[in-house]
This record gives sequence, C-alpha cells and structure tokens, in this order.
Amino acid sequence: METRNIFENLSCIDHRYSLSEADAFAGLSKYISEEASIRSCAKCEAALVKAHLKLRGKLTDEIAKTLDDVAANIDPQEVYTEEEKTKHNIRALVNVMKTKVDSEIGPLIHLGATSVDILDTALSCRMRDVTQNVVLPELKKLENYLCDIAERECATPQVGRTHGQHAVPITFGWSIAEFVSRLGKSILRIEELSNQLVGKLAGPVGSYNGPSMIVKDPEELERTYTEFLGLTPSEYSNQLVEPEYVLRLLLEMNVAFGIIANLADDLRNLQRSEIGEVFEYFAATQVGSSTMPQKRNPWNSEHVKSLWKAMCPRVITFYMDQISEHQRDLTNSASQRFIADYVSGFTMAVARMNSVVKGLQADKEGMARNLENAGGKVKGGVLAEPAYILLGEAGYNDGHEVIRKITLEAEQSGKTFFEVLKTHEKEYADITAQLEKLGVENPANFFEHPSNYCGLAAVKSKRLAQKYKELMK
Amino acid sequence: METRNIFENLSCIDHRYSLSEADAFAGLSKYISEEASIRSCAKCEAALVKAHLKLRGKLTDEIAKTLDDVAANIDPQEVYTEEEKTKHNIRALVNVMKTKVDSEIGPLIHLGATSVDILDTALSCRMRDVTQNVVLPELKKLENYLCDIAERECATPQVGRTHGQHAVPITFGWSIAEFVSRLGKSILRIEELSNQLVGKLAGPVGSYNGPSMIVKDPEELERTYTEFLGLTPSEYSNQLVEPEYVLRLLLEMNVAFGIIANLADDLRNLQRSEIGEVFEYFAATQVGSSTMPQKRNPWNSEHVKSLWKAMCPRVITFYMDQISEHQRDLTNSASQRFIADYVSGFTMAVARMNSVVKGLQADKEGMARNLENAGGKVKGGVLAEPAYILLGEAGYNDGHEVIRKITLEAEQSGKTFFEVLKTHEKEYADITAQLEKLGVENPANFFEHPSNYCGLAAVKSKRLAQKYKELMK
Amino acid sequence: METRNIFENLSCIDHRYSLSEADAFAGLSKYISEEASIRSCAKCEAALVKAHLKLRGKLTDEIAKTLDDVAANIDPQEVYTEEEKTKHNIRALVNVMKTKVDSEIGPLIHLGATSVDILDTALSCRMRDVTQNVVLPELKKLENYLCDIAERECATPQVGRTHGQHAVPITFGWSIAEFVSRLGKSILRIEELSNQLVGKLAGPVGSYNGPSMIVKDPEELERTYTEFLGLTPSEYSNQLVEPEYVLRLLLEMNVAFGIIANLADDLRNLQRSEIGEVFEYFAATQVGSSTMPQKRNPWNSEHVKSLWKAMCPRVITFYMDQISEHQRDLTNSASQRFIADYVSGFTMAVARMNSVVKGLQADKEGMARNLENAGGKVKGGVLAEPAYILLGEAGYNDGHEVIRKITLEAEQSGKTFFEVLKTHEKEYADITAQLEKLGVENPANFFEHPSNYCGLAAVKSKRLAQKYKELMK
Amino acid sequence: METRNIFENLSCIDHRYSLSEADAFAGLSKYISEEASIRSCAKCEAALVKAHLKLRGKLTDEIAKTLDDVAANIDPQEVYTEEEKTKHNIRALVNVMKTKVDSEIGPLIHLGATSVDILDTALSCRMRDVTQNVVLPELKKLENYLCDIAERECATPQVGRTHGQHAVPITFGWSIAEFVSRLGKSILRIEELSNQLVGKLAGPVGSYNGPSMIVKDPEELERTYTEFLGLTPSEYSNQLVEPEYVLRLLLEMNVAFGIIANLADDLRNLQRSEIGEVFEYFAATQVGSSTMPQKRNPWNSEHVKSLWKAMCPRVITFYMDQISEHQRDLTNSASQRFIADYVSGFTMAVARMNSVVKGLQADKEGMARNLENAGGKVKGGVLAEPAYILLGEAGYNDGHEVIRKITLEAEQSGKTFFEVLKTHEKEYADITAQLEKLGVENPANFFEHPSNYCGLAAVKSKRLAQKYKELMK
Repeated sequence: METRNIFENLSCIDHRYSLSEADAFAGLSKYISEEASIRSCAKCEAALVKAHLKLRGKLTDEIAKTLDDVAANIDPQEVYTEEEKTKHNIRALVNVMKTKVDSEIGPLIHLGATSVDILDTALSCRMRDVTQNVVLPELKKLENYLCDIAERECATPQVGRTHGQHAVPITFGWSIAEFVSRLGKSILRIEELSNQLVGKLAGPVGSYNGPSMIVKDPEELERTYTEFLGLTPSEYSNQLVEPEYVLRLLLEMNVAFGIIANLADDLRNLQRSEIGEVFEYFAATQVGSSTMPQKRNPWNSEHVKSLWKAMCPRVITFYMDQISEHQRDLTNSASQRFIADYVSGFTMAVARMNSVVKGLQADKEGMARNLENAGGKVKGGVLAEPAYILLGEAGYNDGHEVIRKITLEAEQSGKTFFEVLKTHEKEYADITAQLEKLGVENPANFFEHPSNYCGLAAVKSKRLAQKYKELMK
Repeated sequence: METRNIFENLSCIDHRYSLSEADAFAGLSKYISEEASIRSCAKCEAALVKAHLKLRGKLTDEIAKTLDDVAANIDPQEVYTEEEKTKHNIRALVNVMKTKVDSEIGPLIHLGATSVDILDTALSCRMRDVTQNVVLPELKKLENYLCDIAERECATPQVGRTHGQHAVPITFGWSIAEFVSRLGKSILRIEELSNQLVGKLAGPVGSYNGPSMIVKDPEELERTYTEFLGLTPSEYSNQLVEPEYVLRLLLEMNVAFGIIANLADDLRNLQRSEIGEVFEYFAATQVGSSTMPQKRNPWNSEHVKSLWKAMCPRVITFYMDQISEHQRDLTNSASQRFIADYVSGFTMAVARMNSVVKGLQADKEGMARNLENAGGKVKGGVLAEPAYILLGEAGYNDGHEVIRKITLEAEQSGKTFFEVLKTHEKEYADITAQLEKLGVENPANFFEHPSNYCGLAAVKSKRLAQKYKELMK
Repeated sequence: METRNIFENLSCIDHRYSLSEADAFAGLSKYISEEASIRSCAKCEAALVKAHLKLRGKLTDEIAKTLDDVAANIDPQEVYTEEEKTKHNIRALVNVMKTKVDSEIGPLIHLGATSVDILDTALSCRMRDVTQNVVLPELKKLENYLCDIAERECATPQVGRTHGQHAVPITFGWSIAEFVSRLGKSILRIEELSNQLVGKLAGPVGSYNGPSMIVKDPEELERTYTEFLGLTPSEYSNQLVEPEYVLRLLLEMNVAFGIIANLADDLRNLQRSEIGEVFEYFAATQVGSSTMPQKRNPWNSEHVKSLWKAMCPRVITFYMDQISEHQRDLTNSASQRFIADYVSGFTMAVARMNSVVKGLQADKEGMARNLENAGGKVKGGVLAEPAYILLGEAGYNDGHEVIRKITLEAEQSGKTFFEVLKTHEKEYADITAQLEKLGVENPANFFEHPSNYCGLAAVKSKRLAQKYKELMK
Repeated sequence: METRNIFENLSCIDHRYSLSEADAFAGLSKYISEEASIRSCAKCEAALVKAHLKLRGKLTDEIAKTLDDVAANIDPQEVYTEEEKTKHNIRALVNVMKTKVDSEIGPLIHLGATSVDILDTALSCRMRDVTQNVVLPELKKLENYLCDIAERECATPQVGRTHGQHAVPITFGWSIAEFVSRLGKSILRIEELSNQLVGKLAGPVGSYNGPSMIVKDPEELERTYTEFLGLTPSEYSNQLVEPEYVLRLLLEMNVAFGIIANLADDLRNLQRSEIGEVFEYFAATQVGSSTMPQKRNPWNSEHVKSLWKAMCPRVITFYMDQISEHQRDLTNSASQRFIADYVSGFTMAVARMNSVVKGLQADKEGMARNLENAGGKVKGGVLAEPAYILLGEAGYNDGHEVIRKITLEAEQSGKTFFEVLKTHEKEYADITAQLEKLGVENPANFFEHPSNYCGLAAVKSKRLAQKYKELMK
C-alpha cells in the first residue's frame, strides 16, 4: 500500500484542510477519493455481470453478493500495478477483477461494454452518493442553523443597509431569512438534480453496436445494468453520457456557493470594528494576531469567501467539458478529475460556514446602538420615510418638504427626529391618525424607536424559517 | 432623438453584427435595448398604479389603457434629459410619467415603491419576454432543423470517431441526434425557467416597511402588482429580488450555448480538407480567401465557436453578481446591464447556427469513402470488434487473438477484412450462425460493409427526432 | 450613412455609458469603433503600397499623401455595401480602395498580402493608438490624482485595518500610497507593452510563399511595411501574428483594473454609515434614493467595482484565443472583436474613478474619531503593540502580559490606555527611556495619541507620490 | 508523522498524477508541498534573526548555520500540533522554533514582524524556487525538443492549413517553429519575473510602526532580511506584499500554458485517422481501447489539453486575489493556497508534453501524401496562388481568371494542375521567366511539386531553432 506523509501532498485539500476539516475530508474521501473512484467502477462492472446473468435467468443472490463483495474490496494498488502493463485503467481493473471471480463469471466482466460505459456511469454514482451522503447533509445542517437564527432573532431590531448606508430598520432575523430562502431553494434543487443522474451501456459510440451482437434488446440490458446502480440510462449517449446531467448539478452547487459567499461577506462586514453586530466564536487559547493581541478577526467567514474565490471560476472548466469532438475526444478526462477538488472545496466551505453559524454571537446591543445612532446623522432619521408617506396618505401635497425641514431642525438642534416631530402638533396628529387607520399598535409612540418600523420583517422571517425547516426534513 | 452613425459604435453587437444578423438584432432590440429597458420600467410603474387603483376599487378599463399607452410610448430621450437633473434614473422616469397622466393619478406613481421594486421586476419581464419571443423561437428553429437531419439521415452510414480516430460505424443521423437530445432538453429547461421569473414590491430592504404605511396587506399589493405583469412575487426580497431566478436562466442559456459550440466544432472538423463529410452553404459570389481562390472555409461554424468563447466566461460575472452586501450594494448594477450583451451574443450565435444547419450539405459519398477507407488502415477493420464479440459468444476463448491475426493478414495482403475472414471457414461459419441467432438480416453478407454494423443508430435517431419535434410545438 | 437612435443599441457601452462617459466614448470611438477599424485596415493597405513603391524606388511624398488621405477617409458604409457581394471584408475594402486611386497604383493594393497581414497589423495599430491616446492619459490622470492625495494627506492620521478590524495607526496618505505604487507600476508596464506590438506581411501561412514570388527579400518588404506603421514584424507569424503581444497588453490592463477595483472597494467601505471617513462628491440636485432622502450612496465606486466584475472574467476569452489550430482557424475572429468592449469597459471605469478621486472628500474628523474610539474597545488600545515591544526592548520577559493587564484595567475602568499606562510608573519610565533611545520626539506624550505611532507612513507616502508623479510625465 | 494511503487523497494531483508524473511530483513537492511551505516560513524566520544579529554586529557563521539547520529541519507535524493550541499557524511555528534555539536567540525570533512579513516573503521564495528549479527546467527541455524538431524537419514538406482547409505548402519544421518562437519568449519572461519577486518586513499595515520601535532604520532591517533570502523589498507593502509580482508570474505561466495547449491541439488533429501526419509514441503492451484493438489514440496530447482546461480559468482567482480590503482582509488566504495546485497542474502538463514531443513520430509520407492529394481536390491546386501572382507580375491583368480556368480544366480532366499549366505554353513561359528573375532554382520544374512553394519556411525555421537553443542555455 502506497502511503505518504500528508505534508508532502501538493493540494491543500489533501494536507492542511484534510486536517482542519477532518470530518468533511473523511466523508468526501469515502465517496470521491481515487480508491472510491476505482471501487465505483468495480461496482459498475459487477452490475454489468449481474445484468447479463439476470437476462439469462442465472442471477442468484449468492452470486450477486460475491460480485458486490469483490467490487467493494478492490485494492487500488493492485489495479495501478496492472495498469502499468496495460496503460489503460479500465482494462487493468477488468484484468484484476477476473482473478477474483469464478471462471464462468470471468468472461461476463465488461462484456459488451466500452470503458466509458463504466467510467461515466460510475461518475454518476459517485456524484449522487457524495451529494446525498456528504454535501446535502452538510448543507441542510447549515440551512437548519439559519432557520434557527431567523426564527429566534425574527424580532431583533437591526438597521437595514443599502450601499453600506443606513436605509430603514429591519430585524436581524430578516437579514438571515434571506439566506434561508435563497439557500433553501438551492438545496432542494441540488437534491433533485442528484436524483436525475444517468448511466449508460451503449458501446463505444453509443449506438449499441457491440451490445447488439450479444443480446437481442441492448436497451433492456442497459436498463437492467443502470437499475442495479439506482440510475436510469442517458437518453442519448455517444461514447459519453450526455454531459449536462453532471454539469447542471455542479452549476447548482456553485449557485449555493455564491449564496454562502454572500452570507460570509455579510458576516465579515458585520464584524467590522465600527459595526460590531455579530461575532464568530473565538477559542480561549486562540491568537488573533501574532503582534496585535487586541484583535479578533472574522477569519472563518474570510476563509469561506476565499474558498469561493478559489472554486467559483472553475465552472468555466465544467462548461468547457461540454465540448467533445465527434463521438468523444479525451480532452475532458483530466479536467473531469478535478470535479473532486471542486466538490471538496465546496463541502469544506459549507462545513466551515457551519462552524461559524453554529457559534454565531449576535450582539443585540450593538445592533440597537447602530440603529439608534444613525451613523452619526439625525437620530431616528431612518423614520423620515414613514413620516412622509403617512403625510402623503393624509392628503398633504408637500409632505416630503415638511419632513425634510423637520429633519433639518433635528440636525441643527441635536434633538431626535421624534422629539422635533412632536412639536409640529398638527402634522403629528395627522400622522398618528393615519397610523391608527392602519391598525398599528400604540400609534403615539411609533416614532419613538426606529425598530417600530420593520414592516413584515418578523412575520415573514418566522414564516420562511418554519417552511424551510419542514422542507429540510 | 439622439442618433449615431452605427459604425461609430464600440461593440460589434451594435455595428457589424447588428447588420449581419439584422433580424436577430431587431428582435433583441425590441426587448432589451435601452429604450426597451426604460419602457419595461414604465410598464411596471403603470402596473403599480393599476394595483393601487384595483385595491381601492377604482380601476377602470379606460384608466388601464391610458396607463399602458403612456408606458409603451415613453421617450427615452426625455427620461435621460430629466436624469441629468435628478442623477437618478427611476426618479427621472417617475417625474416624466407624472407629466403624462391626470393629476389624481400622479401621486400614485411609484407610491410605496423603491427603485428596485421597479428595476428588478422590469428585468424579469424583459428576460422573460426576450427569452420567449426571440431566444426560444430561434432555438426551436434550430432544434427542428436538427430533427429534420437526424430523421432524414438516420440511416446514412458514417464512421464513428473517438479521439479523432475511426472507432465503429454509426450513421450521420445518429451523430446529429446527439444534439437533438442534448439541445432539446436545454430548450425545455430554458422555457421552464423563463416562466419562473419573479418580481417584487417590498420596499427598500424588502420588509414592506413603506408599503405597510400605505396598505393593510402589503403582500396583497405586491401580488396584484406582479400579477398585472404576469409574474409572481419573489419568495424573499431584500432590496433586490433573489438573484438566482435570473442567474439560473442565464446558466442554462450557457448550457445550450456549450451544446451548440460542440455542434459547431463537429461541423468544422467534418469540413476539413481530408475529411470532407459536410459543407456549409457557399454563395456564388463569395470569396473564400483574398489570395487562395480554391478555399471554402467553415467560417460560420467558426464564427459560432468564436462567439461561444466570447460569451461563455461571462457566467463568472453572473455568479459574482449573486453577492450583494447586506440588503444590497450597487456593485451589480453596471455588470447586470451586460446581460443584454450576453443574451445578444448567444442569440446571434443561434441565428448563425441556424443558417449553417439550414443549408448544411451532407456529402454521403465522402462519408462512405471515409468509412470504407478506414483512414488508410485495414479496410473494413472497424468490423474487428463484432467479429471478436461473436466468436466469444460462440464459445471461443481466444476470439480476440484469432481476429487480431486476421486483421494482420489483411494488412499484409492488402485485402479487406471480410475477404480474409471468409477464408477462415470455421470461424466464419460460427460467426454467421451467431448472427442468425440474433436475427440479423442477411448474415452471410454482414461483414461486407461496415455500415451493417450500426446497432440502433437508425432506430434511435428517428425516435429522438420525432420525440423532440413533438416537444418543440 | 446608416444611423440609429442610440437607445435602440443593445450594449450599454453604446447607449447609457456612451452618454455618461461621453468624453471617454468619443476618444474610444475615434480609435476602436468599426469605422476606426476599417480605416486602420485601409491605413495598412496604404502602407503596403508605399512599401512596394519604396522598394521600387518610386515612392514620392505626393503619392504617400494621396494614399494616406484615401485611407483616412474610407467610408465604412461603402465597404459594407461591397462586402455584401464579396462576403469577405478585406476583399471588399481592397475593391473600394482600388476605385479611389490611380490605375498604376491599383494593382499594388494588397499585393502579396493575405487578409490577416492587414487585419492583425491593423489590430496592433489600433491597440497601440487607443492605449497611448486614450487609456494611458486617463490612467495617468488617475495616478496623478492619487499622488496628490498621498502627498497632501501623508500625515493625516487614520486607523489601519486588517480583517476589517482596527489594527495599528497609519495615515490616509499611506492608504492611498498603496495605489500610487501598485497602479504606477502597472501603467508603466502598459506603456511598455503598447510599444512592443507587432505586425506582419508574411502571407497566408506566414512563410512568405506569396511575397517570395514578388520580391527577392520578402522580409525586407515586411520590415518596410511595418515601419510605415510604426511597428516591427512579428518574430514568427503563421497566418496570424503571434497572439501573445496583444494578450499580454490586455492581461496587464486587467492587472490595472484589479488595482482600481481594490481602490473602489476601499472607498466604498470607508463611506459606510458607521465609518464615514471619505465621501464622493454629490451634486446639489442629486437624489440619493427614490424613497430615502437622507441617503448619500458611494455609487460611483460601486459602479467601478461593478464594471470590474463585468470585464475581469473576459481575460479567459483572451487566453482561449491563443489557441488557433494549425496555421490558423477562424475561431478567434468574433471573440477578438470584443476586445473593443473590454478596452471600453476598462477605460470607462478609469474615467469614472477619476471623477471619484478628483472630488474625493476626506473627513479628517471622522478619521480621527474612529482612530481614537477604537471601535468601542479600549481607547488608545492600538498602542498596546508598541508598548509591549518597547518593554521587550527594555529587557522585560513578560512585557506582553504586563500590557495585557493594563489593557484590561483600562477596559474595566473606562479610562484610556495612556491614562492607565502612566499609573504604572516604572514601566512607563522604561518605555519612555526606550523611546528616547530611538530618537522619538516628545517621548513622554507618545502614547497620548495613537497617531504618534505611524512609523514611516508619512515619509514613504510622500516619497512614493513624488517618484510616480515624476514617472507619469 | 501523519501518513495516508495516497489513494485516499481527494485531488488527482496527489493520487493519480503523483504516480504518472512521479518525477514532476517529487520536484514540486520539494518546493511547494505543505512541508516545503512551513520550512520556507522557517527559513524566513531564520533570516529575520540573522538580520537582527547582523545589524547588532553579532552574527557569526556558526549561528547562521545553526539557524539554517533548524529551519531546514522543522517538522510540520510539530507545528500543526502547536497550532491546535494557538489557532495561528505562524505563532505556532515561532513557538516551535523557540524550543530549538538558544535562549538569547529566542526573543529575536519574529521580533518586529507580523505574520505576513513571513508568509508573503516565504511565498515569494517558494515561487521563485519552484519556478527556477522545477518549472523552468521542464519548460526549457520542451523548448529544446521543439528546437530539435524545427531544425531537423525544417525542410520536410507539409501542407499549410487555415480553417482546417489546405492553404499553401509549408514544412513541418515551420509548423513547429511557431511554438519555438512563442514558447521561447514566454519562458524568458517567466525567468525574468521569477527574479523580480519581493519580500517584506514592514509590520501589520506596512508602515513599519512596530519595526520603528526596535531599530532606527527599519528599511535597513527589511533590506537585510530580504537580502538573506535573495529578494528585495516590496516597493510598498500594507500588511501584504504588492500582489502583482506573483500575479504576473502566474499570468505568464498561463500564457505558456495556452501555447502548449495550442501545440497539443495541433498534434491531436494531425493524428486524426484521415490525416495521420504524426504519432505519439505507443508502448508495445499498451491497450488503445478496451474493445477496439485497432485504435491508437493521441491521449497524451488530449491529456495536456484537458489539464489546460482545468487550470486556465483559475487565473480569475488570481485576479480576484488582487482585491484585499484596506490594509488587508484574509479572503486571499485559502485561495492563495491553490496556487500550488495551479503550478502543479501546469508543470505536469509540461512534463507530459515533453514525453509526447520527445517520442514524436513524424510520418513524412503521410505529410507528402496529404500535400499532393490536396484533400481530394485538384492535385497541385495549392500552386494556383503563385501562378496567378507570377502572371500578375508578368503584366497580365486577368491572371486570376486565367488560372481559375486552368484549375477548372484540371478538375474536369483529372490531370494535375502542373500538367494542364504546361499545355498553356505562353503563360507557362511567362511564369517560368518570372521565376528566373526571382532567382528560383530549376524554374521549369517549380510547379511539379507543391513543396517547392514554401517561401522562407526552411530558412526561418532553422534560424529560430538556433536562436532559441542558444537562449535556453
């Protein structure tokens, strides 16, 4: 068995991150390492033998079990040693498998198949399995954490920001509900796509030339083969399975990645010294900076964003791999191997985001302070909007101008917007009457706190959290 | 009206290709030019007024018609002139629209909306409309042409190629059926996604703060507004509609683009001097080369591939635009405008591919010659595969070796594979018997022509062509 | 002359931004519009005729002038009309030019050239000219503005930030000097690369086959031809000039673009409500938001970042265009036309950044406030670093711990770091002694203001500003 | 020591390709594995101690040697174990190093440095070292192989192709000289850039705040530090070294990669069944296809192209990493680690291309056959161009038309172009006279073989081969 000091590896996925995300690495390795790849091919070869036997009415449970066992225990080293002779990886696998089965079974191995009938089918199996057993559980964990926060903090006042500027009040739950909704839909789509992956058994150029020499209905053989693997056949194959099935799954992972990167950026920014609304969990023995002891950096959110930068552009490779000349060229072979790197980078980012979100500390006082302070401008000034709307509703033609003056007065006097508003008795009365009509609770104090002006933030945050929590089950 | 000599434009979309693809340009301009953008915003503003009136029970057909007319005839120049003052494009539009309607209607324009309630909703309308009225018709035309070829040429023998090497025989229809199947699915998905686009009317940070000051049920107002535009509301909005709706549509267009680029590459290669299996239509007065009169270049297929190279990497921009800090930053504003360029580049490529495929000339003799000539190797050598399979089925353990020797004998003697095979009488008889079992017609002559060995190519080509022709209706 | 309402154009470069960046558009259009492209080709054809005449000893000033005039005044419409017949753009140009010159000159037009001898050479001319006459002046203007700020604000205290957290003090000039240094080098490299562009006159596959039939020394003809255009010959050409000359220029533009996008991001963040250290110039009549009158958004910086997102990924297209099969395929033809879009998008971003930087308002009070406030942590806490370093230098083994305790004491008592430090008399004395050794002015008050701890920020800002101001001349 | 079965790794770089490119892997691992990274940081820490000692006049050879030995033998496992406590990689390294040196030396480790002073400087060292010791030798080997072919085959006739169509004759050497010239320049630029990498010792935000507390001239300390590592200081640093130094090196590697991918595509296409002009070396025991024994695939060239597809888009990540907010954010930290993957993918592609080019078999007969056969068109038709040029030179106004008719006559009669040309005695005589004027050897037989019409192909191929062979020394 070929082993290596992991620190001699070249890709950080296989050294540094295999340790820092040890659980994710173990899960990923189980499904998409080279060992897993070879075994998934062996599983396909076993399925092909079973299909042949089934069509001949000769498949027994015992034989099936034996074949599955052989496949599950193939030693990659043995296959690689054989490949040094054949210079062909699937031929090598076939040769090795033949040594492990009875002599009547041997000739059925790979019978009627071309290499890609195995390789592309195995890729679909691996992508489905890693998605459903590693990627989706990690994503759903994240979605559930987000639902928790959106629900728990549905009414925690926070200032809403556009262009990095204070806009109008929201709640912290509302700002998280965004990711509940966006990520939730992407998770459901990833799940759907992982169930649509397909296989093939259609020979070198997909037209069943070889299989037609072996069985009367080669499409039946293909259906039986893929069924053993939990797949259906590609609607069309040349030498390759139609590449768009895997492509769409990867594109959607990258959609989810973009959403998570957006969350990471938001969390990074909310941790700025001047903002200080949330904090990543920070271990007691952790060093923030090698020279500046006061620092506490949002380094996990930064890490997630950084992984996104490393992975996102790789979709171009996936798109490029759609093009294969004629019935196939091999220029997608090496590039396709890096799908494992992409899935790993993505999954590790999700895992890291889980650690951020799980321990996320919302500083409610910080949020309240920022909301009231109005970034150094007129306190309560974010309420200028509702005041002018309500005046308009009350029939004022110059509502915007009235409010602008009140704002100015507040700025010059250093009073809050509410304090000045109250001194304009007629306007204040008209506004209050309007609020009563809308059924607002306690209309007289509406302008006391910006946090009263949050629209449906709380209601809808809770609604979305509950919906997606249900859907993640 | 600001006009310009088109040759002074900077983007080839607006000069050269606006002429060479004049029909496509006209269609695109109708839906996604700047004029179309402004008018789509005006249409949204009109819908908002209608929604307000409807909820108040005051909407009449006459008012609705007036509003629609105002929106449809907004002069972009007038809006731009106003924007020079306001420095804000939506405020400029609102100001202009107010001058066109009755004074009771005026105050309802933009009431309760933030700019993006209009802008993002209008983008969804434009994307839906250009997709359904320009992009999809062009794509379906292509799909139909491909179905025609796949059906018509379903039995035209051609050599199947892998790695650019002769592999086993297929039919020309089969090689086109690939694109029928792959592109067909992408077209259906594009259609589906174009019907899922959404709008919003939820105020500056999406939590309905402003609308809550105006109506009791702001979500009802939003539903009414989007319904007038044929949309549903975004499940969640901050200032922006969830970006993934438009993103997924663009990603799928790029999926279709990759498929078409693959087709272009295949056609380019089949037109190589040494291959000569298909030809682009060539006008009588056309010059192939400024100095080499004998040349006839696959320049339209090259053009399509080149547009793909120009457009494909732009999906990275679309992914980048998923990230908008907090309730939005504006860093997606300029970049989003280039969606129009992408859709144009894509549509023009489809239109060009239509002209290629419409006039595509298949040289059946060329195909037959290449298939028989076997690239200078043993003639009929592509039949080595079925011969060895059939021997295997007949119980030979050394079938592969027997056939290899026959191949060598053919190579050294200059005879065809079939000629030599026949001289090995026992093997030939066993093979023929096996073919009889499979129910092959005329088994004795099976090896005379490689084209007999095409599996299900013809059957499945026809099946796919008929299926997708139906689906395109 | 074909004209069009500009609002019917599809690319925002040719509608919206052609107005908002009217000066940049005019400059760009002069060099890289379709009209400019055709005329640059005509100029190359003229140069070829002059080269033939010169080698024959027949070139007169008068003929040269006539040829230059013909080239400079070619009407693109006329060429396009001719192209409808020839379906070949260069052949069309040649035909049109032949109608404009004397009959003895006519046969010399295009003599010995293949289309690409003209097209690629003309591209090099255009890229050089637009770079040197439009792009570089705009970039140098930006660099000069940055030098001004770096010098003027070299001593304006600001807090240095890492991870968005307060780190240690710097000056505002220092934070701008970063861009002086990075952008300055990129500008110089762009200039260098624009002077290295090359042309060719080497026939269809670059081996001078045709030219060898016309002149004894075809390389002399090529040198003469390119010399008339201010270029040298490509060291090797097949049908194409080596693509790397233009590629490297574009890659370096994208390097400069990344630097400017970084600046845009920094400026955006410094304008956050909670930070408020700089402001974009804001016109008196400008509307910040259609509903929130209090807002003042960093929309120009956002615009620049957004253009970067639109343009940066296009380098992949430029890299893809390195690959041209054999002596050339045409798959770089359409894609290469979009170089004009890239250069335009880049230049317009630089122009916009110029408007930002020119009117940039630094809020010194805001900077001072943030620096002192320490983001709500211990005031003056950014001075913990020097205190512990100086204690270390004074021989304390536990300096880090001593200072940590002082920091805690300050936090609990609400005093500043300096106030508490002074009460630890021995340590304070040792620190002060150490500062004296270093020659620091006024050591006793060093810890009074964080701004005393700025290292070489001021000195080096000024030095860099002066250096690059000189280099930009 | 943490070891792992390599088949459990996730990235193909660390499993499959670490075996198939074992030499390249070993070289890369030596310089850019995680072990190498940690040791390069240790080396920087050692250099910093030496710099401190040197400025204090206390550096002895013995101490220097001890420090270098400690750095060279740091055990990554030990550092990782320590990092579990500190959660900070550089602090962990510093702690470990302190246990390995004398107690007087200990306090000097990391003194005055921030983590990035070490990390970015170490990255520059690694990039320089891997480039100069692994990447460049591999590239120069390739360049030398190409020079060999260009020189050896400088006169081997081949048909030149544009658009995949036969154009005019060249030589095989000429088609390889393209890559000699393009790749040669890129290699020289990579070398130049690898010598320009820089380091820093300027503290947390680059303004030497900390170092100013320790030494009087912190820039002298920085120069001394970087000098020990063979670097110069970054002209400007904030927390980071200016990112453009490493960026430009990576961009240029990608330029070289594009050139090599172009070569791979050309070789792939020249191996098509119908073309058959070159062949990859094929081992005796190698299996071409698991089912089609006759096949011999250009799989190594395909592999190189595929690696390019996997790696090329990653430059977008490198560009994205230019942007780091304010004095730095950490969002370039994870992404930067994947530089190792890129350099590995690139180097492995070069190594594979070396194996292709080293064993490349040019089929001169195949080349001659294609050149004469003219792709099934008029034999010798590629000579239409010189014939019409020479007639033009001889004063014919209708040369193009005359030759077109001769071509038609040849086509209809099945004769070669030369055979028919000779029957047009006057024109033939005029052409021959013109050839005599040009000094062509044996003018009467010029049109007998297309290979006579190769311009300067042979001369210039040899010239370029010799030039670059010299430059690679």
